[in-house]
This record gives sequence, structure tokens and C-alpha cells, in this order.
Amino acid sequence: MIDYDAYLSRAGVSMQGSAIRKMGVVAAGIPDIISFAPGYPDPTVFAWEELREIVSSLLDGHDPNALQYGPTRGHTPLLGALLEILASRGIRCGADQVLVTTGSQQGLDLVARILCDPGDAVIVELPAYTGAIAAFKDVQADLVGVRQQQDGVDLDHLEDVLAGLKQRGRRVRCIYIVPNFQNPTGMLISLEKRRRLLAVAARHNVLIVEDDPYGDLYFNDADATLTRPIKADDDEGRVIYLSSFSKTLAPGFRVAWIAAPAALVAKLDTAKQAADLCTGSLDQRIVYEAWVRGVLARRVPELRSRYRYKKTVMEDAMRAGMPGLLRWQEPRGGFFIWAALPEHLSGDAMLQAALAERVVYVAGAAFFVDGSGRNLIRLSFSAPAPDVIVEGIRRLARVVRTAAEASTAPGV
Amino acid sequence: MIDYDAYLSRAGVSMQGSAIRKMGVVAAGIPDIISFAPGYPDPTVFAWEELREIVSSLLDGHDPNALQYGPTRGHTPLLGALLEILASRGIRCGADQVLVTTGSQQGLDLVARILCDPGDAVIVELPAYTGAIAAFKDVQADLVGVRQQQDGVDLDHLEDVLAGLKQRGRRVRCIYIVPNFQNPTGMLISLEKRRRLLAVAARHNVLIVEDDPYGDLYFNDADATLTRPIKADDDEGRVIYLSSFSKTLAPGFRVAWIAAPAALVAKLDTAKQAADLCTGSLDQRIVYEAWVRGVLARRVPELRSRYRYKKTVMEDAMRAGMPGLLRWQEPRGGFFIWAALPEHLSGDAMLQAALAERVVYVAGAAFFVDGSGRNLIRLSFSAPAPDVIVEGIRRLARVVRTAAEASTAPGV
Repeated sequence: MIDYDAYLSRAGVSMQGSAIRKMGVVAAGIPDIISFAPGYPDPTVFAWEELREIVSSLLDGHDPNALQYGPTRGHTPLLGALLEILASRGIRCGADQVLVTTGSQQGLDLVARILCDPGDAVIVELPAYTGAIAAFKDVQADLVGVRQQQDGVDLDHLEDVLAGLKQRGRRVRCIYIVPNFQNPTGMLISLEKRRRLLAVAARHNVLIVEDDPYGDLYFNDADATLTRPIKADDDEGRVIYLSSFSKTLAPGFRVAWIAAPAALVAKLDTAKQAADLCTGSLDQRIVYEAWVRGVLARRVPELRSRYRYKKTVMEDAMRAGMPGLLRWQEPRGGFFIWAALPEHLSGDAMLQAALAERVVYVAGAAFFVDGSGRNLIRLSFSAPAPDVIVEGIRRLARVVRTAAEASTAPGV
Repeated sequence: MIDYDAYLSRAGVSMQGSAIRKMGVVAAGIPDIISFAPGYPDPTVFAWEELREIVSSLLDGHDPNALQYGPTRGHTPLLGALLEILASRGIRCGADQVLVTTGSQQGLDLVARILCDPGDAVIVELPAYTGAIAAFKDVQADLVGVRQQQDGVDLDHLEDVLAGLKQRGRRVRCIYIVPNFQNPTGMLISLEKRRRLLAVAARHNVLIVEDDPYGDLYFNDADATLTRPIKADDDEGRVIYLSSFSKTLAPGFRVAWIAAPAALVAKLDTAKQAADLCTGSLDQRIVYEAWVRGVLARRVPELRSRYRYKKTVMEDAMRAGMPGLLRWQEPRGGFFIWAALPEHLSGDAMLQAALAERVVYVAGAAFFVDGSGRNLIRLSFSAPAPDVIVEGIRRLARVVRTAAEASTAPGV
């Protein structure tokens, strides 16, 4: 019997599975479970009919390259479209500053690999997206957490953390940040804070990795001006910007992109050659056609109202089902409600009872690199139908109420 | 102006672009160029009409998951299909021993990451596939070359190399090998050698990474029994087997797989979570449907005769256009002719003249980790139409003849 552990690299030994993905596997084994765990978009709002027409025309044989290997950098017309999409967000880029990635997760992975040696420090928010944590951990970076305030990352704490790392002679590579409707908190960083963040990064000579999958999905049109990417004001070339079609068109295509200084994009391209050669050729063409035919532009306003509605349904059900028990900040966009249980409860400890009630969420601790967050839970309202949300919150309410009562019962 | 080099990891600094991909970019800029560089399948034999029907039925809305995120491990029905495909090749696997990857390039990348720390030795053939070299180099493994004989890797040299590494206290992780119609040589490793290779690996306690994209594409039906994977006789669990649909169905889908011991597949799954979450959902469903509807089984015999024919066209043109100038071993399957120029010529040095004649190949040096191979070139006959192959070889013959004459001219 071979001891496979003896063959693993240090990275291989330390890799840990995603808490979100794990919940997906757990949920798949329980019939009739209602899952608020994964940040999946709502498949009922995918543009099925239009996508079907698009694929049919792409596979009529006129383009022999539709199923062929393609350039690592990306399908050329799609790269052109990306420049226009970026421009509409206030980001001016040249053609040598964009790279298509196989989902934004690949973008994070490539960025981590070209920037970080083992032991390099990377700053993340408390809490931060688990997929980014995993990508940086897999290159054995040392993740250092910075607290959040109501309007996003706490810049005073960030300054303190950066100064402390410098004092200890540590090399800090980048600050990873999700400015728009953050995963998991749903938080929107204020515009003023975005500008100050750029200044802090410049002063401390670190890069900013700006991950923006949810920017288009604001709930109130007045918020559109508030989602301006940090990259839009990045005159110095300090920001690596990631965005994706997964939340607006469909995640099954695995098409996302990076906009960054040309020198870094060239390195990311080289890293991608060895990572997967190229992103799916048909997928990239479908996404391009959906953009050029206006499918995406027509669809996004519908998504906004759909997700806003579901968010409202979930919040109403939470208020009705467990008044006073959960606390949360109302999200202004995105997919998530980030809720605090009563202080003495633990999202992890409550999971078994939740699974018994056939409802599941992601316990908050996985999003914190400092071991905190045990009483927080991430509830995704994006995928389930409204009536399912209501029923799921009803089940969750039973779980939370029972746990809260048990923990405050005399003699316990 | 930011000095981006100062932000790069050691891996980032040392990454080098693929010689094959580079030729693709070079060729794209030259009108009417004939490219023998990339190992692209022939798009005229893709099952366009059947694939179009498949996609149309997949996008009729009955399966909401067709465009959704999916399990990292792979689309469940496809995983079942993979077990049957593996069984047909003599490989018995359980469901916990397979993982879908985003092309085999991702498979190589994941394997390299879970196995190799910087400085670990990895054995590759002289020559070896550049994509594997890149994947292992990107985790800073130390690639050590082993010579080939007419029937594949030289086992005596392999033993010497392994013994030498052991003596120097070096940790050897794995032997990377392409047993069927190797890229770039087209070589088929004899069955006897496969068995002995397993024994050598066991004796030296190293894993075998067996990469098998071309096994189905033999030119003579008598050779079918000769492509039996090493993994089929791997009773001990020492072989990590990779294969792909890229060469038989289409590469644009980016669907491939790994079969390996369950403990390693679990780690590869974890690594893939951080690398790209999951392989394209629609792509995996298309591939599964193509398998279950028999498209793949019907198509493969046609591919064999098509590629055999093109191979013959190229060989005939080479013999006619530059008799005695190129030497090669006739490939019995796959996509490549691996040709030796006269000893004093260099594939790299000849490239400029070739581009001027509007023909391109891959110079052999990129496939050798020991700096040798300068007079070899890889010619791929898979993608171009037969008349294009003839014209391309005509152009190449002018280049080779001119170079040979110049190098033997008096006084030079």
C-alpha cells in the first residue's frame, strides 16, 4: 500500500477544501434540502432561448475555429468587447492589458502564482471570499486580515497592519478587495474610501487586487455611480482588476477576465499557458455574441430587479421568522445576506441541526483568516425561488430559535 | 512608473512562454502562412451537425444546471462515462478515482502542484511535451531528462539517472511519460517496456504520470493492442493517468480527465477548487451526450483514417521535396512527424527563413530539458488540408535545401 501523503508537496499537504463547495456536496446528498449555501445565480433568468440561437449559429460550420484551441489571451473579438465593457465602467485599457480567464477563480489563481512566494503577506478583509483565500494559500502566502467598517475596509487598521508588517521586515504583495457587494458581507465600499485605499497602497508600495463580479447587480439605480471600480482611478497602474460573466450571463461558461498593467498581463498569459492553454472556445464565442447582440445589456436590469426582490423576500422572512435573533446590514446589491447569530451561538455548531431541518448555509468562520466570525452565517438568496426562500428561512428560524433557547436555558 | 518585476514571485520571474503557443502568435500575423506548428486537430472532421443538435437539446431549458456552476469533481453522468471509457482501455477505476479537468493541461498543472516542491526532481523524456515541461517548471521542479530509444524511453539510462539522483540525495517525484504516439516524436512505447517501466518506478519508489491524449488515434488497427495504457497494469496504484477529448471530439470544449488513486484524486479536486472551481458545465454535458449518443465511437475510426492519410501525404511530400535531407521515424499514430535536419543545421536558426517562405514548424530545442535537439523540428500534419500540407512541405523544402546548401558551400 503506497503512502500517498509521502508524495505530496508542501502546498499539496496544506490545501484545504472550500467550505462553500463542501456544503454543496453535503446538500446534494439530502433530498428536498433548501440551500442558501452557494452563490449561484438564478438559472430561471438565464437567456436560454437567445443562447440556444447563438450556439446554433456558432455551430453551423462557418467558423472552423469555434471548437478549436484558441489564443491563450482570449478570443480576439471578445477582447475587444472587454475593452468596451471596461470603458463603460470608467476603466481605460489597451488591448495588451486584458486577458480572458476560465472564471475569475482562475484569475485569482494566476495572480497569486505570479505574485506570491511562500511566506509573502497578502492583505484580505475580515471576512474575505474563501476562493481568494484558497488561491493565495495554495501558493503558501501568509494571509493577514484587516477589519471592516460599515462602509468597507477599515483604512486605519490597514495602515497599522501594513506598518507592522513592514517593521517585521515582511514583504507584502497585495491587498485583495471586493469593493462592490462583497462576498460574503454584501458590503459596498464608499467612493471616498476607494480613493483613500489607492493612496494607502501607493504609500506602502503594494498592489491592489480588485475582484468585481457583482458590480452590475446593484438593487437601486441610484447606486450605479457608487460601484465605480477602484481601477477606474488607478492612474499609476497599481490595480489588477478581475470581473466575470458568471453572475450576469451564466457561470457554466467559465468566462471571466483580468485587466491589469501590460507587464503583468503578459506574465499572467504565460502562467495561463501552463494552467489550461486557453479558455473554452465555444464558451468565449457564446459570451461575445451575447454581448454584441445586446442580450447581456437587456438582461442585466431584469437581474437587478429579480435579485432585489429575492433579497426583500429573504429579509422579510427573516424578520417574521426570528425577530430580533439575527442582525444584518441590508445589502445594496449582489447575492448575499451576512447575518450575525446571537453572540454565543456558532454557525458551525448549528449546521447539524440545520441539515436535520433540511436547510443549509455557509458558516462564517471559513471567511475569516484570523479564526473569528464563529457566530456569522452567509445566506445566499440568489438561486432559490421566492417561495423556497420563505420555506427555507422558516426552517432556519426553527433551528436558530431552538439553538438560542437551548443556550439561554437555565443550567446550561 | 512601477517596476512590476519587483512584484513577481520566483515562479513568476522564471515562467517562460510556450514555444508552440509563440509560433501560433507569430503565424497569426503572417497572411497565407502554412502552419505545421500547433498540434491542432482537423476541424473539418468535428461532428458539427451532431454537436449542434446536442447543444440545442441541452439548452431547451429542461436542465437548469446546464449553465450553472457544477461539482468540482465533474458532471456526474460524465464521470460515469469516464469509468466506461477507462474500462475499455483496460483500466478499472472506482468513482472516487476520476476527476474532470479543464483540458489535460490543467491536469498536468494540478499534478505538478500537489506533488512538487521547488527543487524536487521530475523525470521527463528527451524530448518531452513542452506543456508538461512548463507545468512542472512553474512549480520550480527540476526537470531531468532521460534518453529515448526506437521503442521509447531508455530504461537503462532511466535507472542510471534515478540512481544518480538518489546518490545525490535528491527527491524524485515522478516520471512523466506519453506512451502512445508521443508529442513530439510520435513514438509508441513497446508493451514490454511499459511493464518494465512500472517495475523501475516501483523499485525507485516514484510515481508515473502517464499522459495519453493520442491513444485512440493509431493508424493501423493491428496497433490497437499496442496502446494499452501503463495504468491498465498498475496493480499497485503508482500511475496517474491523464486523457482528453480534445483530440477525438474537439479541443474547444476543454474537457479532459485524470484517473488516479483516490487519495491523490481527492487532493487534485481540492487543488482544482482553487484553480477554476469547475470545468465548463455546458461543455461537459456536450461531451457526455456525444459519448452516450455514440458520436464519439462512430467518429474515431474516421479520424484514424483521416490522420493516417495526412501523415502519408506529408511523408510523401517530404521524400519528394527534400530527398535524403530529413530523417524521421514513421509515426504509427497521433499528430506529429519528428524530423532531424542535417546535423549542422538548427531548427531555431532556420525559422526566419521559414517564416519568409510563409511556413512554420516548432523547433525541437524547446522539447529538450538538457539543451540538446537543435537540429530537430516538429511537423504537425493534423490540422492542414492535404493540398496545404503538400504546398507547405514544398515551401519548407526550399528553406531546408537552401540552408543545407549554404552550410556546405565552400568557404562557409
